[in-house]
Amino acid sequence: MVKVNENYSNIKETYLFTETARKIKSFSQKNPDVNVIKLSIGDVTRPLVNSVVDSMGKAVEEMRHMETFKGYGPEQGYTFLKEKIQNYYKTQMGVNLDINDIFISDGAKSDLGNITDIFSNDNVIGVTDPVYPVYVDSNIMCGRKIVYLKADETNNFLPMPNENIKADIFYLCSPNNPTGAVYSYDQLKIWVDYANRNKSIILFDAAYERFVKTNNPRSIFEIEGSKTCAIEFCSFSKTAGFTGTRCGYTVVPKELIVGEYCLNKMWLRRQTTKFNGVSYVVQKAAEAVFTNEGAKEIDETINYYRENARIIVDTLSRLNIKFYGGINSPYIWFEVPKEFTSWEFFDYLLENAGVAGTPGSGFGECGEGYFRITSFNTHDNTKIAMERIEKLFKK
Amino acid sequence: MVKVNENYSNIKETYLFTETARKIKSFSQKNPDVNVIKLSIGDVTRPLVNSVVDSMGKAVEEMRHMETFKGYGPEQGYTFLKEKIQNYYKTQMGVNLDINDIFISDGAKSDLGNITDIFSNDNVIGVTDPVYPVYVDSNIMCGRKIVYLKADETNNFLPMPNENIKADIFYLCSPNNPTGAVYSYDQLKIWVDYANRNKSIILFDAAYERFVKTNNPRSIFEIEGSKTCAIEFCSFSKTAGFTGTRCGYTVVPKELIVGEYCLNKMWLRRQTTKFNGVSYVVQKAAEAVFTNEGAKEIDETINYYRENARIIVDTLSRLNIKFYGGINSPYIWFEVPKEFTSWEFFDYLLENAGVAGTPGSGFGECGEGYFRITSFNTHDNTKIAMERIEKLFKK
Repeated sequence: MVKVNENYSNIKETYLFTETARKIKSFSQKNPDVNVIKLSIGDVTRPLVNSVVDSMGKAVEEMRHMETFKGYGPEQGYTFLKEKIQNYYKTQMGVNLDINDIFISDGAKSDLGNITDIFSNDNVIGVTDPVYPVYVDSNIMCGRKIVYLKADETNNFLPMPNENIKADIFYLCSPNNPTGAVYSYDQLKIWVDYANRNKSIILFDAAYERFVKTNNPRSIFEIEGSKTCAIEFCSFSKTAGFTGTRCGYTVVPKELIVGEYCLNKMWLRRQTTKFNGVSYVVQKAAEAVFTNEGAKEIDETINYYRENARIIVDTLSRLNIKFYGGINSPYIWFEVPKEFTSWEFFDYLLENAGVAGTPGSGFGECGEGYFRITSFNTHDNTKIAMERIEKLFKK
Repeated sequence: MVKVNENYSNIKETYLFTETARKIKSFSQKNPDVNVIKLSIGDVTRPLVNSVVDSMGKAVEEMRHMETFKGYGPEQGYTFLKEKIQNYYKTQMGVNLDINDIFISDGAKSDLGNITDIFSNDNVIGVTDPVYPVYVDSNIMCGRKIVYLKADETNNFLPMPNENIKADIFYLCSPNNPTGAVYSYDQLKIWVDYANRNKSIILFDAAYERFVKTNNPRSIFEIEGSKTCAIEFCSFSKTAGFTGTRCGYTVVPKELIVGEYCLNKMWLRRQTTKFNGVSYVVQKAAEAVFTNEGAKEIDETINYYRENARIIVDTLSRLNIKFYGGINSPYIWFEVPKEFTSWEFFDYLLENAGVAGTPGSGFGECGEGYFRITSFNTHDNTKIAMERIEKLFKK
């Protein structure tokens, strides 16, 4: 008689985005004349850049002819793309990676979920609160214990380790979703030393690294000692608008050894057994991100979003609202006025300014009293939204 | 202190394709004048058909413009593609599927591996021997017990259930890889009744369904009662040459209930948490498979491979060699002469005819004494290879 994985009954249903969507829809139906502006968007809105589209289009044509057709590729990704990523780490961050430490996938979300496979279910998992829900849910599915590291005003939403935390595997996301906070070199060094000392693993989500513009680490591998304790997840989703195109990469250093196990070899085995590589045309699209022209184009897109973040940050500053993020991140995380909970403020903003965001408490208990808005809308909409917010707050 | 998943140390390294490749390379180096023909190819060789390439090319151009750009899509796949699959089952097989029972993925291999997530590790897994290794390895990674159902001459390589088999989840592949054997309606009805009676689950791999041309089931859902006991995995890889393009689909009927758990809801939760959907451009490519022109074109490709299979089957028949498959499958599985083991015959054929295949024992103990060749090479190469084999056998 078949038995299901009963851990699934312990996953909380997160109604966050369903609930915000429902409320927005209901408001719009009652107020058809109000143009609701969604600063709740977590998806990109700018199209793929020309270099990427051109490269993908050429690859599609290659598939038409027997001489250039591509069948099964390497499960861990084509060398042409892995070399570009290797070179990117070297030239942009001064990080040397072995090419076989790089694994191409259909996105960071898949890898962040699937990486659970190579670890025992006895591990205790440390996540920050607020948190990107995938870290939590994919581990609850395995029946693992989760401990929460409070991210709040007292630590600038950047929790640090201490010897009282009993966890074996830590998820860190920097620049952070949802808070936009970014660790410094010194802070990550403390994390890496802690992990090596305690034989813990850091799963480092660098999906927003391309947004970093101040002198902060973009990769955990910029930190000395990290190769013996960290795995890094990255993605073309926010870097180059690949949210609907699907491509990411994960770096598992060969130096990462647990007892007699080399985690790189385990991940290779996992991927060759339960995955069959990313579409050739998508990998050719990703390759174009690393050409001179492609890099210039995607930086223009990133700068477009940064300009939106600047508009938001300027408004919040003028209004004396305390905020995090927005400098090295597409996310801005701000304190809601004391009289509101996050959800009450969501309603208030929607009803009185026609602007939608995301209530901080939806990302975890420590998010209560905060609100997330994103820089993924258009310049025009972002400006109008912030003018409305400014008017409302000055009432 | 982090602990790894030690079940990984129980996975046997399968050197099958590494070893055959090594032997072929070594032979070619020593005999540079021999044109070795590989009937060992498991990958397709015909390019994508024009309808598919045109559709994918158009989708790529949509990604260039803000108005038509696609960001995150539904994790379970776009409705436009799911509707085509739903219609395909209805018109081609008379099977009614709820559209929400269809999940689009990056390929059957991923889903066949990942489906393990929703089941408890206490289940005993039943697989056939010989077997596609993914079924075995992905379950050993979870620490599950595997039992083998012998597929041999006595059952025409189509094992049937019996009450002495103590397994909870069964993997069936029909048309079979590697043997090419296909279950009949009556046989699958026995399997379905058995599974319902014993509250077992059948994981049905239909990756080769498009090759079926006799009156045999192409989907487990053609069998009455199957929706309460079966999940079906299918793919565009062999159907339409998507091995390097990556797209498949899995059907989890809502009727599949275990205790209080609806497996469809569990798989939806798994996919929305640990997967983010298939590239929009790939889903548009897959959609073209279901147009009149696309279907005509992919049938031409399938017929191309069928013609190769016919050439092989004709030769084996003339030589009075006992074989399986080749009628409803791109694989031909034949008995090697009594004096050889599978591996000895591999060497003999390579050295004396310059033809490479795959030793049956590489797929499991019951494969000993058999040999797999495929119909994925060109007409010319297939003809030459079979002429060489005929000459060798007539010596």
